[in-house]
Amino acid sequence: MKLITFTTAGHSRIGALENEGKVVDLNYAYQALLKSQNKYRYKEIAEAFVPTKMEGFLQGGKESMRIAQEAIAYALANQDSFEHQLVYEKSAVKVEAPVTAPGKIICVGHNYREHILEMGREIPKYPVVFAKFANTIIGPEDDIPFYPISEQLDYEAEFTFVIGKKANNVSEEDALDYVAGYTIANDVTYRDIQRRTLQWMQGKSVDGSAPLGPWLITTDELTDPSGLDVVLTVNGEVRQKTNTENLVFSVQKLVAFLSNLMTLEPGDVILSGTPGGVGVAMDPPQFLKDGDVVKIEIDKVGTLENRVSLQKG
Amino acid sequence: MKLITFTTAGHSRIGALENEGKVVDLNYAYQALLKSQNKYRYKEIAEAFVPTKMEGFLQGGKESMRIAQEAIAYALANQDSFEHQLVYEKSAVKVEAPVTAPGKIICVGHNYREHILEMGREIPKYPVVFAKFANTIIGPEDDIPFYPISEQLDYEAEFTFVIGKKANNVSEEDALDYVAGYTIANDVTYRDIQRRTLQWMQGKSVDGSAPLGPWLITTDELTDPSGLDVVLTVNGEVRQKTNTENLVFSVQKLVAFLSNLMTLEPGDVILSGTPGGVGVAMDPPQFLKDGDVVKIEIDKVGTLENRVSLQKG
Repeated sequence: MKLITFTTAGHSRIGALENEGKVVDLNYAYQALLKSQNKYRYKEIAEAFVPTKMEGFLQGGKESMRIAQEAIAYALANQDSFEHQLVYEKSAVKVEAPVTAPGKIICVGHNYREHILEMGREIPKYPVVFAKFANTIIGPEDDIPFYPISEQLDYEAEFTFVIGKKANNVSEEDALDYVAGYTIANDVTYRDIQRRTLQWMQGKSVDGSAPLGPWLITTDELTDPSGLDVVLTVNGEVRQKTNTENLVFSVQKLVAFLSNLMTLEPGDVILSGTPGGVGVAMDPPQFLKDGDVVKIEIDKVGTLENRVSLQKG
Repeated sequence: MKLITFTTAGHSRIGALENEGKVVDLNYAYQALLKSQNKYRYKEIAEAFVPTKMEGFLQGGKESMRIAQEAIAYALANQDSFEHQLVYEKSAVKVEAPVTAPGKIICVGHNYREHILEMGREIPKYPVVFAKFANTIIGPEDDIPFYPISEQLDYEAEFTFVIGKKANNVSEEDALDYVAGYTIANDVTYRDIQRRTLQWMQGKSVDGSAPLGPWLITTDELTDPSGLDVVLTVNGEVRQKTNTENLVFSVQKLVAFLSNLMTLEPGDVILSGTPGGVGVAMDPPQFLKDGDVVKIEIDKVGTLENRVSLQKG
């Protein structure tokens, strides 16, 4: 499934995007299916197994995933069967970030082998990890707010995964069983603010600095997170280009490493790192400006495109 | 008020600790007051203004604080007036961390002037900030879990404040109006894990590595966060000793600085930094062991005491 969060008429709900550009409302789809089975408590059962928020849905694990697939099939075959709308045209809703309130956003630094070697550095023994908070998340149809607290707004294309099952001390072999799916993030960075102290977080935590989406593609559809091309363009010009086979710490290694340190929970978002080609490393440096369009494409995942929008001081 | 989260009979609720060692259940106290006023919808009104979780209560701001004070007075004067118990002996409940699910935990490094100078460093121009996540929070009656992933478990006494009002671009002059209250944290650190990469987060994010409490003392009772002695002992031996007047970046400066970068929300927890005297800096280094008792006392705030408990591998 391509799982999304979407807004319609002020309501934020989760859905699945079907190939024909249709969005199925998962909670109402399951309510409709249950009602067709004459279940009195269809609302409550649907709220328990397929709630309207992604974090809650992911807590349901593979059971909720399976139920959602049944509900999608029912809704597509019975579109007008329910008191609420079950299926929308994608263009008729606003697509939000797939996960909007994760408990953790963990970012990995220095994780692309070719970039580390070209910088003359050694391959690190441990992942470098740092944090963003949920205030940074915006969706695929939002603009990247550019607050005038710096002139060095920069992009970072990141292949991203979302945890689907509570994870403690997970082995690399079992790791993918703890991943709900994959998406794309732009780890937007105020570069001078990042670098004014040794700890990067302050340049990484500005509101709206984590465009995320456009959807969460589930692990039953994208079974292998390696070998995926990652390309970032600014106004059509290629700036970053790599492949996830170049990750020093793969998705499996990151799940194992992080779950050895801390409990990972459904909905936790992990950005796996960015390759070379960020604006600050260009000669001369090229930072983002008002109106620039940053587009990240990842094979088999999709495209995340956001425009930069200068905010008033 | 001294606001707490407490557990009784498996229910986690918020309360106020009164001088006589009594705990008043804030939500039931307000329900009781409303019922005495013949309000039909006393449960719903209480849930709106004085919910059972601290983050929700803090969202109510000064209005909810004022209501809570009325409710406490009513409950103490009418202890047996309601269908639920209103007042407990402190010893009859388990006290949890005052805030258990903050959206952000922001930690400040290198923030005590005398310690920076004794290390021969320059006073920093900007605060050094990094993150912990909510998985780290434990309460004042919990043991500090010591996972056998390192032999270098260390303590850091931290004067801590909790945000009480959405904060964006707040001035130092207005900053305290955005603070709900003060508490104590131990920024428990796996020192070798912290230092194996440039970014500290991995040594700071282990489950249970942020003992927090014992309560949140509100800003109407503790009006000035400067001039407070901070003392940390391990098994009774003084290891850290400072005063909040030595903070390079005061509470006011931190609120201004952070709210200029990102939106702070009610419930966000900010650890203001630790002074000299951590175990790794002793000669020879002294790390925490199973059974050690770490006690942090801060003037006018209280005492946070936790025992270290070695976990199985």
